[in-house]
Amino acid sequence: MNKQVYFFGEGSKADADLLGGKGANLNEMTRLKIPVPPGFTITTEVCNEYLENRNRWPKGLEEAVKENLKRLEKAMKKDFGGKKSPLLVSVRSGAKISMPGMMDTVLNLGLNDETVEGLIAGSGNARFGRDAYRRFVQMFSNVVLGMDMEAFDEILDAKKHEVHAKLDNDLTAEDLKAVVGAYKKHIERHLGMPFPENPGKQLKMAINAVFDSWNTPRAISYRTIHGIDHHWGTAVNVQAMVFGNMGQTSGTGVAFTRNPSTGERKFYGEFLMNAQGEDVVAGIRTPEPIEKLANIMPAAYKELVEIYETLEKHYKDMQDIEFTIENGTLYMLQTRRGKRTARAAVRMAVEMTEEGLIDKKAALKRLDASQLDQLLHPSLAPNHGKTVIARGLPASPGAAGGKVVFDSKTAAEMGLKGEKVILVRKETSPDDIEGMHFAKGILTATGGMTSHAAVVARGMNKCCISGCSDIVVNGKARKFVTCEGREVHEGEFITLDGTTGEVILGEVPTIKAELDGNFETLLSWADEHARLVVRANADTPKDAETAFRFGARGIGLCRTEHMFFESSRIPVMQEMILANSKEERVKALDKLEVMQTEDFRGIFKAMNGNPCTVRLLDPPLHEFLPHKQADIEVLAAKAGLTYEKLKDIIVSLTEVNPMLGHRGCRLMITYPEITEMQTRAIITAACDLAKAGAEVNPEIMIPLVGTLEEFTIISKDIHAVAQRILAERKADLKYKVGTMIEIPRACLRAKDIARQADFFSFGTNDLTQMTFGYSRDDAGKFIGDYLEAGILKHDPFVSIDVKGVGELVKMCVHGGRKSAPKLKVGVCGEHGGDPDSINFFHGVGLNYVSCSPYRVPIARIAAAQANL
Amino acid sequence: MNKQVYFFGEGSKADADLLGGKGANLNEMTRLKIPVPPGFTITTEVCNEYLENRNRWPKGLEEAVKENLKRLEKAMKKDFGGKKSPLLVSVRSGAKISMPGMMDTVLNLGLNDETVEGLIAGSGNARFGRDAYRRFVQMFSNVVLGMDMEAFDEILDAKKHEVHAKLDNDLTAEDLKAVVGAYKKHIERHLGMPFPENPGKQLKMAINAVFDSWNTPRAISYRTIHGIDHHWGTAVNVQAMVFGNMGQTSGTGVAFTRNPSTGERKFYGEFLMNAQGEDVVAGIRTPEPIEKLANIMPAAYKELVEIYETLEKHYKDMQDIEFTIENGTLYMLQTRRGKRTARAAVRMAVEMTEEGLIDKKAALKRLDASQLDQLLHPSLAPNHGKTVIARGLPASPGAAGGKVVFDSKTAAEMGLKGEKVILVRKETSPDDIEGMHFAKGILTATGGMTSHAAVVARGMNKCCISGCSDIVVNGKARKFVTCEGREVHEGEFITLDGTTGEVILGEVPTIKAELDGNFETLLSWADEHARLVVRANADTPKDAETAFRFGARGIGLCRTEHMFFESSRIPVMQEMILANSKEERVKALDKLEVMQTEDFRGIFKAMNGNPCTVRLLDPPLHEFLPHKQADIEVLAAKAGLTYEKLKDIIVSLTEVNPMLGHRGCRLMITYPEITEMQTRAIITAACDLAKAGAEVNPEIMIPLVGTLEEFTIISKDIHAVAQRILAERKADLKYKVGTMIEIPRACLRAKDIARQADFFSFGTNDLTQMTFGYSRDDAGKFIGDYLEAGILKHDPFVSIDVKGVGELVKMCVHGGRKSAPKLKVGVCGEHGGDPDSINFFHGVGLNYVSCSPYRVPIARIAAAQANL
Repeated sequence: MNKQVYFFGEGSKADADLLGGKGANLNEMTRLKIPVPPGFTITTEVCNEYLENRNRWPKGLEEAVKENLKRLEKAMKKDFGGKKSPLLVSVRSGAKISMPGMMDTVLNLGLNDETVEGLIAGSGNARFGRDAYRRFVQMFSNVVLGMDMEAFDEILDAKKHEVHAKLDNDLTAEDLKAVVGAYKKHIERHLGMPFPENPGKQLKMAINAVFDSWNTPRAISYRTIHGIDHHWGTAVNVQAMVFGNMGQTSGTGVAFTRNPSTGERKFYGEFLMNAQGEDVVAGIRTPEPIEKLANIMPAAYKELVEIYETLEKHYKDMQDIEFTIENGTLYMLQTRRGKRTARAAVRMAVEMTEEGLIDKKAALKRLDASQLDQLLHPSLAPNHGKTVIARGLPASPGAAGGKVVFDSKTAAEMGLKGEKVILVRKETSPDDIEGMHFAKGILTATGGMTSHAAVVARGMNKCCISGCSDIVVNGKARKFVTCEGREVHEGEFITLDGTTGEVILGEVPTIKAELDGNFETLLSWADEHARLVVRANADTPKDAETAFRFGARGIGLCRTEHMFFESSRIPVMQEMILANSKEERVKALDKLEVMQTEDFRGIFKAMNGNPCTVRLLDPPLHEFLPHKQADIEVLAAKAGLTYEKLKDIIVSLTEVNPMLGHRGCRLMITYPEITEMQTRAIITAACDLAKAGAEVNPEIMIPLVGTLEEFTIISKDIHAVAQRILAERKADLKYKVGTMIEIPRACLRAKDIARQADFFSFGTNDLTQMTFGYSRDDAGKFIGDYLEAGILKHDPFVSIDVKGVGELVKMCVHGGRKSAPKLKVGVCGEHGGDPDSINFFHGVGLNYVSCSPYRVPIARIAAAQANL
Repeated sequence: MNKQVYFFGEGSKADADLLGGKGANLNEMTRLKIPVPPGFTITTEVCNEYLENRNRWPKGLEEAVKENLKRLEKAMKKDFGGKKSPLLVSVRSGAKISMPGMMDTVLNLGLNDETVEGLIAGSGNARFGRDAYRRFVQMFSNVVLGMDMEAFDEILDAKKHEVHAKLDNDLTAEDLKAVVGAYKKHIERHLGMPFPENPGKQLKMAINAVFDSWNTPRAISYRTIHGIDHHWGTAVNVQAMVFGNMGQTSGTGVAFTRNPSTGERKFYGEFLMNAQGEDVVAGIRTPEPIEKLANIMPAAYKELVEIYETLEKHYKDMQDIEFTIENGTLYMLQTRRGKRTARAAVRMAVEMTEEGLIDKKAALKRLDASQLDQLLHPSLAPNHGKTVIARGLPASPGAAGGKVVFDSKTAAEMGLKGEKVILVRKETSPDDIEGMHFAKGILTATGGMTSHAAVVARGMNKCCISGCSDIVVNGKARKFVTCEGREVHEGEFITLDGTTGEVILGEVPTIKAELDGNFETLLSWADEHARLVVRANADTPKDAETAFRFGARGIGLCRTEHMFFESSRIPVMQEMILANSKEERVKALDKLEVMQTEDFRGIFKAMNGNPCTVRLLDPPLHEFLPHKQADIEVLAAKAGLTYEKLKDIIVSLTEVNPMLGHRGCRLMITYPEITEMQTRAIITAACDLAKAGAEVNPEIMIPLVGTLEEFTIISKDIHAVAQRILAERKADLKYKVGTMIEIPRACLRAKDIARQADFFSFGTNDLTQMTFGYSRDDAGKFIGDYLEAGILKHDPFVSIDVKGVGELVKMCVHGGRKSAPKLKVGVCGEHGGDPDSINFFHGVGLNYVSCSPYRVPIARIAAAQANL
């Protein structure tokens, strides 16, 4: 039989699995001779035995608890259940990591009608004793007996009303005694049994309540969602009570060893004299800053400072501590790793390294890469009231406010006048690009984390909330309605928090983002330790410049179609689509070629010799044609067609499932002249730069390949065009031709395709869509239910689905490298900027990841972490 | 060095790889001492060496040809190029299988200005000699020199005009001599070189022309499309000429050893006296039936009959033979396996087995299962003129004619009046089910072989042409327009051939289908030899009865949603979808439950104890709502909603990619009450039948599962409902709960899912859509280009893609059986009725295939063939 109960000091911080996080740290502090009220921890193993044993205590536990209780009585020189000097304890749950839905705390356990008299006698304070008893009965009834709090509050309020008391504090000892009596009557009436007076029984019930709370529905669903093993179990901590509310030489406080908000190396916290921990939280009295304790109780303060220094050195990290002073004696109640803002995390990591407390690797490893996103986007000013009227998916981080508009044209008009606008749409389409450009933020009712709105907004670094099914957008009536019936009309001001998905009525001030020196330092350390190269997805010279500034070492995805959506270019694109003959089409393509060549020159130049992967035209052609009657009429007139004729063409191009339609390399098979034009533009731009002495590394990427034959036919065409230009210009330029891997079949046939392709780049958005059969534009309708039911642990469009999509990725890398051992493989889907996904990609041996320019810093950190 | 040239008789029918099909059979007949004009075959190896060697003859070939030519001269007692008794030869290509695009034949080779005199002298027939020479020059110029025929025809016509001749036959020897002279002048003017007079040079050029024809674009593309190895090469047959046009004791004919149309065991063919083979084909004179030869040339006929009996016994199959009689002597020019109709194939297979010529296995093996489809559907009367105005995909076989209608309502109205109608739509949706029911055939402009129209039509056994991009449908104007500009208005009569995809203007009579006794016999033999069980996809009791009659041993797929589309039920379904609360929804579901229970009773009863797999609701809910303004108005009024409100609901349910949207088990997670209703209906129906003493084996199938968790949650729900009913009714019923495998991810996680699922059934339609990323409704736009370019060898929706989708299937079966070695696995997608796919499914160890009722017989044959 394993040891069931650890008296504080018998375990250590290494025992978090067995003693839970809280228990392990209490044991560790005791070992360090830091003053901790004595107590003991019942192991997680016991919890599991209890649960498997149909809620019965395992053999030996009764004795072990009794024995440890004896040691506790001896240490405290008090009697558990004793009438004279009663020992009171707290009982707390404590799993390996802290987890909502589980039992929190029962304080003052051991009190009953007899022992309360001893407490009063010992403390010489009747009101203190009666209040402790009242609090205990109420807390025990709620937490252990599972009773509703409402009736207890009513009893207390009735008493206050009766004696004309305003605050709880105005009640006398006698009042409180009466309240306890009333509580007990209510309990007996409600439960059909009296309140348990026996301290031993109280303790056993409280311990069982902790064990049982492991399996509350909320705790189970939390574990399911977070992928936490249901077999961990929780430990139970039983600890002697100390009181911060014993009078003017008592007090309680919480503190951080450094500033958790800024990261400054300065002891930071607050305290209240003559108070218990819950009073600090309740906010009735305003706590004092921790420095003031130096004046009030210099000895205790000095001891506290020594302890915090010891703890930080020992744990080599910023600690979040709780303490209580009982009649001048300091007790530590908790220490744990302190939560921190992204800014603080960065500063502390750098400064602790400089102080020699940790090394660079440790500094990098402890960062939460996802959290760092905060530093790269504006955020809402904290502590500012806000009326949240709806919640959607946090599709693109940052915060912004503006007047609501419902169409792209209005957005552009108002935007041009300098007005801040938020574009609200059911969903966006390529028609909305211009409006999105002028909007400060985008809100859509449908679409997932990788819907058109989300992807484009992230590319533009604008905040975006997508899939906000709480609202119904009525563009015609120029309003949207929330599920609670609130109507928001065009011109009303709203604020979006793209980091949380909150839609807020009115204006909330925002704080600008900036990359500080500490962050730059960490990024340089990250590059020293990463194996994966980080590239960026960039479609314009401007994006490419931003990406380069953020440290991207190449472009992983340049989506050429985004260039065609610009208002000066879309007419030429339409001319090409509506061409009646190949000749007419080539004429339009010639015009586009001039523009594209210029684009590529800019992009290649910005990347300064780093490789640039250009994806050839991908979307179905109907995306470039108008869908509204008025727009169709305009285009028809211009193209010399009747409205009906053009409408027919548009309808004939429309697809039932455009995602699975005539797009990507399928267009190239039907219209090789498009591929040829794009190849000419890429190679010509590269030659121009090379001639001017610049280094340039173009990589031409064929999208949506599912068969070797597609790749063979198209790449042959590309090489023919490229070789012709190189021969004409007598240029000696190196270029690659590879493929995007986004069709499940391509993963299955990777071995064949790798024989001919110079590189693979996973398009994990589409690969996820097809592997799951989820349309990213429609999945919003059920993905919420799926996350809630625990069917999905996370949105697979946000973080790669390792067990499904990941299997295909592995299979593909393995198959591809079988034919071409040195095959360069990267990822350019949205997952390229997600730390968990980056860790996976590192593990399967990819060469690079590519993400939005504003995610590059995070990807650099994550790439280093993956390698450490 | 391998033997380069085989003198006829040196090779055998086993040498088809080396000597080509034609050459191998000529060698074989010579071996059998059947009179064949002597000759020799140059091997396919030589052809490949020639092509690899940049069109130069390999070493030794010159000598080998010379030597064999000598043997030929000796055998024929003639001289090649001799002035007195010149040897003339034919030169023919002959690959392993016959292939369009390759050189066919040069006859009379060896003639020139000198040898023609010898031919005239030898035959004593100047006109015959001059005509042979004229034909040779013309044929050689066309086939070997690659010249256009037009000028030659003009020269001939000019001469006819000059001498007032009506027919070629009216030209005299002198006229023909002049024509040859004019031909030669034209050749020299056109090619800048004289016509080659040297017979040796003629022969070499002709042999090279055969070799070169292996690589004509048409031949290459034919091989690519049919997956024929480009390295086979062609053989060349050089054979002594014999003449059927030497006079009244000469003749030529073609015959089959049995009737190729009916299969009757009777010598069948036709002949022409004093004619060459090409005259039979040209159709200027009408050939006589072969029996008449018995009167005209009894000895030759007797010999011919003996030969055909020998050949059929030797080859153990019906032969297609060609013969020529020269001056009373019979020569066989060819024998090969005779092409036959499906009906004939069946009759011959059965009768040859009964005759003891072959055994049952051989009878089954030689059937072309795909071809048998003809027997199960009406077909167009042959030899009937037809005006084909468009071609589409042969989506559902059979033939039918009727008046064109453009909407479901009109189809129903006219159909009820007893009028034959053809429903013409851009594409069909579930709204069209009723119209499809009343139509004789369906024609759609878009959609592939597994589009809605195609799948439903096949299920209804109606002929359907889908993806007919040759037409543009204008439903409003009540007409369609073909690509050639022909307008077809509502009420005009058209005929569809669903087996070929032809759209025909006007009425063409059709022939009914019937299962004859021979086919039944073969099917019973097939069942003896198959391992795969054949089930049917059937949605109604009527379908189930048909399927059972066709020999289905169970239902592999009962699509419950098809029941909901019936006009009496769709309003209840709409009521369910528009319900404001769970209560309202349950009320509507209760009504549906009564109907469904009745359906299932009928289906289970029809299947007589065989297993019945019922798939729970699969399509997205918006499919059940109207989309036309008028229909929306009607429903809004009924549902007590405003038009706008209902329109909003419909729009909010609409999806960008419905294929990848909120459907299948995703609906069950959102609306478990639907699953519960359907489970109640299934189990109650089964209990009712079991109580009445019938055997019943329901299998409940959850569609679109991609994760174990989906299956776990839903199957738990199903079991709970089922167990409750069984307990209430004290019934002891066995039922299974399994899943459809149609999401790539399910294949990757099969090992997990198989731990809980009782069976797997591949939905290969959706699996193909997602593995390739092809929407079956949209792929029509590029799949034609893909087949043409050889990117796809065949439509992957028709025959399973073994290398991609097949890999996933294998992976899934392997993974699933790892956890559950006895896991029952079937397929219920459209591929379940395709012979090639069935062969694959047999190979990977599936337990059953399921297909449309009318495909069951074919599947039974294919299942046997796969096992043989």
